[in-house]
Amino acid sequence: MTLETLETTQNFTEFRQQAVSRIETVLQDLLPNDHTLPARLHAAMRYSTLGGGKRIRPLLVYASGLCLGIAPEQLDRPAAALEMIHAYSLVHDDLPAMDNDDLRRGLPTCHKAYDEATAILVGDALQAQAFVVLSEPGWGVEPDWQVRMLAVLAQAAGSRGMVGGQAIDLAAVGHELALPALEQMHLHKTGMLIRCAIQLSLCAVGITETSEQGALLLQYADRVGLAFQVQDDILDEIGDLQQTGKALQGADRSRNKPSFVTLLGLREAQNYAHRLLEEALTALHGWKHEADHLRALARLIVERNK
Amino acid sequence: MTLETLETTQNFTEFRQQAVSRIETVLQDLLPNDHTLPARLHAAMRYSTLGGGKRIRPLLVYASGLCLGIAPEQLDRPAAALEMIHAYSLVHDDLPAMDNDDLRRGLPTCHKAYDEATAILVGDALQAQAFVVLSEPGWGVEPDWQVRMLAVLAQAAGSRGMVGGQAIDLAAVGHELALPALEQMHLHKTGMLIRCAIQLSLCAVGITETSEQGALLLQYADRVGLAFQVQDDILDEIGDLQQTGKALQGADRSRNKPSFVTLLGLREAQNYAHRLLEEALTALHGWKHEADHLRALARLIVERNK
Repeated sequence: MTLETLETTQNFTEFRQQAVSRIETVLQDLLPNDHTLPARLHAAMRYSTLGGGKRIRPLLVYASGLCLGIAPEQLDRPAAALEMIHAYSLVHDDLPAMDNDDLRRGLPTCHKAYDEATAILVGDALQAQAFVVLSEPGWGVEPDWQVRMLAVLAQAAGSRGMVGGQAIDLAAVGHELALPALEQMHLHKTGMLIRCAIQLSLCAVGITETSEQGALLLQYADRVGLAFQVQDDILDEIGDLQQTGKALQGADRSRNKPSFVTLLGLREAQNYAHRLLEEALTALHGWKHEADHLRALARLIVERNK
Repeated sequence: MTLETLETTQNFTEFRQQAVSRIETVLQDLLPNDHTLPARLHAAMRYSTLGGGKRIRPLLVYASGLCLGIAPEQLDRPAAALEMIHAYSLVHDDLPAMDNDDLRRGLPTCHKAYDEATAILVGDALQAQAFVVLSEPGWGVEPDWQVRMLAVLAQAAGSRGMVGGQAIDLAAVGHELALPALEQMHLHKTGMLIRCAIQLSLCAVGITETSEQGALLLQYADRVGLAFQVQDDILDEIGDLQQTGKALQGADRSRNKPSFVTLLGLREAQNYAHRLLEEALTALHGWKHEADHLRALARLIVERNK
């Protein structure tokens, strides 16, 4: 496979295009081939992972890697593993017993394109595949840091990470949540995987989370993670059908889900997103142009319209 | 926590009781506490994992460990991680979109005791927790073998292992399968996790799969794994409601699922199970009394009545 090169000297648009193209190629290579048995499961795994999505988490892995001077080759598997966890969570989230969504990015969700049993297995298999991808030997990190990568991914994915956030979210439907509780929920539901993107980069270069660089990058990640969710709630309120590819406007509100917009109002939620963006940028003050892609990525996340 | 001791000098009944008690204590300790948030998810994870089950996979880990001279302390986490993968697979298998079972071991299945969305998340979180448990640092194996343990578990759980077997099974409902195809399905669906029990023990002591000991123990595992499934099909045919805790007799046949009994007939399936048992025991010929628990375990699997 030929992979796009990634450089700090590229402009952000170019970096972004190349990184999205690169992770697509890497995922194609690291997902099971749909000519091997069970072919239908493998096809459904590829359907649910390839060919779309903003690839925010891989972009964060590659951009923080550039910031720390890590070659993209060292980051391909962590970025792919993280995106597989994200992809599996969407497949299960869309199930009838969960959010019951028929469309994602304008295409039928996995259980609509295939069937519900297959969608359950697709999510299960994608999670396992993320750990397969990270645990294979000899792709470039020392075993002790490889174990650490596996640990941060497993923790970020589990009941005290992403899945825990989904459970809190589920319990919150129909209830009023105060701002701290809403933030806790999102810190887990989306924040932990975004934080994990930075943790994986730190592992790839062997920097601890408590070092100055580590702590600042994680501060960046936490602000960006929360800003991402605030913007999501804003888009859910104002975004139109075509742009978000979701079937309903104001879908969260119609389901009586707590959101930053219902809690703060639209205007204050927008202010909050921008305050978080400023704090994320402040954490990057010590870096020069090598952090430019991370800065642009934070802006993209807050200023995106889908 | 106080753990039961395991010795080759115990009789098998005593070993089995102590090992089942030991894995229960270890699982209690390694599952998230149900006083920590999200409490309902954690309670459902514990409900689905603790307090029952034959614990065949942990028994295989401990018994093969004794055979290789490994202290049980080195095997607690591998055994627990493997059992968590098994427990998650049962929770997802029981879902309405899959086997739609209301009872397991005479108790309500997870989606009946809680709800369907929680059961999906319980399975997801248990899978992640298995990798959390194995990837934590400093519990006694070198990092390179720890990575290998994570790799064998992820492969055994994924689309070319257990989940792949479930997908083949799903596709086979309502179809005739020839014996080789049926064996392939079970080799994946149950065989890979049973094989994984042995692989984890080999990793704990640093023995490769291609060594003489490794190859023989894996041969044992493959025969036992298949025998386990043949016996499962036999019990499905003849077992009574009370003993299996399942809601229906002949449930597989009533759903038109391929089984060794429908394919071979009851008598020939029983002969086949015993032939596999003999082959499993043959693989252990080179060991003396230190393999006695493995031998007894193989007999238990074939001669069990639930």
